Amino acid sequence: MQKGSEVAKNTMIKIGKVPASACKTLLKLGRDDPRRVIHSLKVGTALTLVSFLYLLEPLFEGVGQNAMWAVMTVVVVLEFTAGATLCKGLNRGLGTICAASLAFFIEFVAEKTGHKSRAVFIGTSVCVVGFTATYLRFVPYIKKNYDYGVLIFLLTFGLITVSSYRVENVLNIARERIYTIAIGCSICLLMSLLILPNWSGEDLHCSTVSKLEALARSIEACVSDYFSDKDKEVIEEEAETARDSIYRGYRAVMDSKSTDENLAHFANWEPRFSKNCHRYPWHLYVKLGGVLRHFGYIAVALHGCLESEIQTPRSVRSLFRDPCTRVATEVSKVLLELGTSIKNRRRVSPDVLSDNLHKALHDLDIAIKSQPRLFLGSNSANNMLANWKNDKEMSPRVTLPSVKTDVSALLSELRNKKVPEQSKDSKERKQLRPTLSKLAITSLEFSEALPFAAFASLLVEMVARLDLVIEHVEELGKAANFKEFTGIKDDL
Amino acid sequence: MQKGSEVAKNTMIKIGKVPASACKTLLKLGRDDPRRVIHSLKVGTALTLVSFLYLLEPLFEGVGQNAMWAVMTVVVVLEFTAGATLCKGLNRGLGTICAASLAFFIEFVAEKTGHKSRAVFIGTSVCVVGFTATYLRFVPYIKKNYDYGVLIFLLTFGLITVSSYRVENVLNIARERIYTIAIGCSICLLMSLLILPNWSGEDLHCSTVSKLEALARSIEACVSDYFSDKDKEVIEEEAETARDSIYRGYRAVMDSKSTDENLAHFANWEPRFSKNCHRYPWHLYVKLGGVLRHFGYIAVALHGCLESEIQTPRSVRSLFRDPCTRVATEVSKVLLELGTSIKNRRRVSPDVLSDNLHKALHDLDIAIKSQPRLFLGSNSANNMLANWKNDKEMSPRVTLPSVKTDVSALLSELRNKKVPEQSKDSKERKQLRPTLSKLAITSLEFSEALPFAAFASLLVEMVARLDLVIEHVEELGKAANFKEFTGIKDDL
Repeated sequence: MQKGSEVAKNTMIKIGKVPASACKTLLKLGRDDPRRVIHSLKVGTALTLVSFLYLLEPLFEGVGQNAMWAVMTVVVVLEFTAGATLCKGLNRGLGTICAASLAFFIEFVAEKTGHKSRAVFIGTSVCVVGFTATYLRFVPYIKKNYDYGVLIFLLTFGLITVSSYRVENVLNIARERIYTIAIGCSICLLMSLLILPNWSGEDLHCSTVSKLEALARSIEACVSDYFSDKDKEVIEEEAETARDSIYRGYRAVMDSKSTDENLAHFANWEPRFSKNCHRYPWHLYVKLGGVLRHFGYIAVALHGCLESEIQTPRSVRSLFRDPCTRVATEVSKVLLELGTSIKNRRRVSPDVLSDNLHKALHDLDIAIKSQPRLFLGSNSANNMLANWKNDKEMSPRVTLPSVKTDVSALLSELRNKKVPEQSKDSKERKQLRPTLSKLAITSLEFSEALPFAAFASLLVEMVARLDLVIEHVEELGKAANFKEFTGIKDDL
Repeated sequence: MQKGSEVAKNTMIKIGKVPASACKTLLKLGRDDPRRVIHSLKVGTALTLVSFLYLLEPLFEGVGQNAMWAVMTVVVVLEFTAGATLCKGLNRGLGTICAASLAFFIEFVAEKTGHKSRAVFIGTSVCVVGFTATYLRFVPYIKKNYDYGVLIFLLTFGLITVSSYRVENVLNIARERIYTIAIGCSICLLMSLLILPNWSGEDLHCSTVSKLEALARSIEACVSDYFSDKDKEVIEEEAETARDSIYRGYRAVMDSKSTDENLAHFANWEPRFSKNCHRYPWHLYVKLGGVLRHFGYIAVALHGCLESEIQTPRSVRSLFRDPCTRVATEVSKVLLELGTSIKNRRRVSPDVLSDNLHKALHDLDIAIKSQPRLFLGSNSANNMLANWKNDKEMSPRVTLPSVKTDVSALLSELRNKKVPEQSKDSKERKQLRPTLSKLAITSLEFSEALPFAAFASLLVEMVARLDLVIEHVEELGKAANFKEFTGIKDDL
């Protein structure tokens, strides 16, 4: 009995906590991006303004029942950013006007037929226009730019054509509706363009900067994690956090495709940056995003090196820590500088690709060449390492890689294990299979230096791709008329 | 004069061609996916059906002017797939009912106040509800599942509350509207669920299969391109096509995230596969899609090896052609088998990860170990290669890699070149910079075998990740109750 009441009590406490946690979530949403609160307030205000059309006597006499259409327009058109609102508002306007014209044309033709055949005519035309408009929405160009417009076209056409059958003065109704929709649209545009506007273009600009910064962070964390000589199990948790930050860094870049394209699409509708009759090159931001994703694949591959089943022994890796870390640091410095230049809307410094980077690459080259026997296979690598250790008095913390058994022996062992299993039932075999294959893979370690070679090769490839990123940032700077680089420190 | 008329003629011909090319695009759309034509026909039919409510006398007497709402519902709710229609229809229904309840509650409270204060009360409540609903749309969970419902809630609430100020029998109006919206929704559901339905789940299923096939193609093309010994410039075009197919293969996988999530979201609303009171595991398809993307990064990295600035000489690569090609072939065989098993809704064959794959990996291991001196640096590699050539009488087509000058010498040369440039104006320097850096990078070639080591390491990593893919396909097969593997060849 007491137990039951305790359970009930706990449940009550849990239920009691739900509103608190919901409140927390809601508050956090607002704190993360205060523009959300402002946008919500704007929608509330716009709705109240538009309902005045209905509530205030003199205004109501002007528009009448059609005030409803203004309410509808505000709810549907007012979007978070100015570009999206403009895009939807203009689409809605265009769709309504096209639909009204076509509807009147059909009404004009239908008027000349009898009552019955008129119904047939209207029914047929609705069907044909419905088919055509829906089919057009599959055309990629229309889908991308005018999907909403075609939807509104179909909606308005249906409403006007069908209602024209029983109403006399359709023209009047249509005119009044267009008025009220225009009122609704203008309230939306006022709210979104003039009062604390959120620009899609600004969002795109900032997200590009933050993507560059995230990549820089991700690469630096990756390389420092690869060469961290701390024991793996002792600080598993810490490593988890580090890897999480690596992941989040490049993930932000990888997943940005559709967001970027949407923002650029809406930004194209925004009038703000098109001074000098000169279209702002939003498409170059999208292109730069693509190049950054291409660059980001390297970060993914580096991360893959961290998580790979096959690992070069920590002791061998630590031989190359300094040059590799320096390459990564230099690359991330360049990325941060590119980010800063975009942030401040100025051209890239001409010596962004500094001598330091070349020097770091060169040192990495020398380091690898100075250890040629590392690439001879694990056993010779161990010998070499031991010699090297004696020569240079390495830190005592470095442990020798354990000598693995011969790969072919291990493989034949696996094969022997597998033969009797073939006679057992399939389920058990299935359970065993993944484990076996993993064993086979980790035992196949080629030369133990192979994974490190891949890592080093990725670093070099990364520098090559960095050039492409710089090229695109420069192209963007030129096309967007960023100010010249003066060499004076930007105030951030 | 004649020239002018010719230009005009050409322009006319061009304009004349526009309708023809538009027609071609439209026909192609339909031929690529005939379901588009069917969907468009369905929308046309549904619109005609719903307009009967208005056109036919007895039906009109039943619903009256409110028939408009049915037209609106059909246009907005009828979507391409059954799941999307259900999702929108139910969201619309739910939103309308919630909004109506809240609106009546507010009407009930407002009734007790005076005429003026009633207007203030209505205005305030519209503002507050508008703010709250818009803010709720930012909550990720609501945004994902109920965004459309909240929009309709706000729309209906605005319409009912505001119009209640001047209309007496709001309850009647609301009831009639709900009737007509229900009629519209049921026509939509009839059209999309019962007449030639398109299932989001089916789309998701098929796209998963085609992603597996695309990856298999992409990997095989990648490896065969890497080892193709044809001269680069002679068949540049052919290589272009091959690389294009590689790109398209993994691109389809990389870009699938949002499409997958949408399809799975809509598929969750579809009743079709939920027999035995058992939810079909659409989320596992999304999870598998994530794992495939993770696997796809390897394909991207392999492709990167093809396009890298630094290349292992073709002659060195060709030493490892056979084992590498065999690994890639086996991996793509496994991927194709996984695709077939999902396509036929049967469990994966227990020996999908065949001994052949292990053997191919093992051979690659032996091949690399048998050429240890390859990893000693370019010059020794050349010597080794020459020896090897004499030993084994290689095909005469293989050319020796040209002996490069020493890296440090090249670098110091570059540095000397750069010093006088510092005095020139910055623009010229900027023009030179990318070229210089590229030169520096390509001259820094480490051991020439390094890029190949990266390639081989990626192949091994790919096999490791293949395990993860198999695991997820098996999990999917188990959760979705695919039929047991019988060993009998599927009829495709």
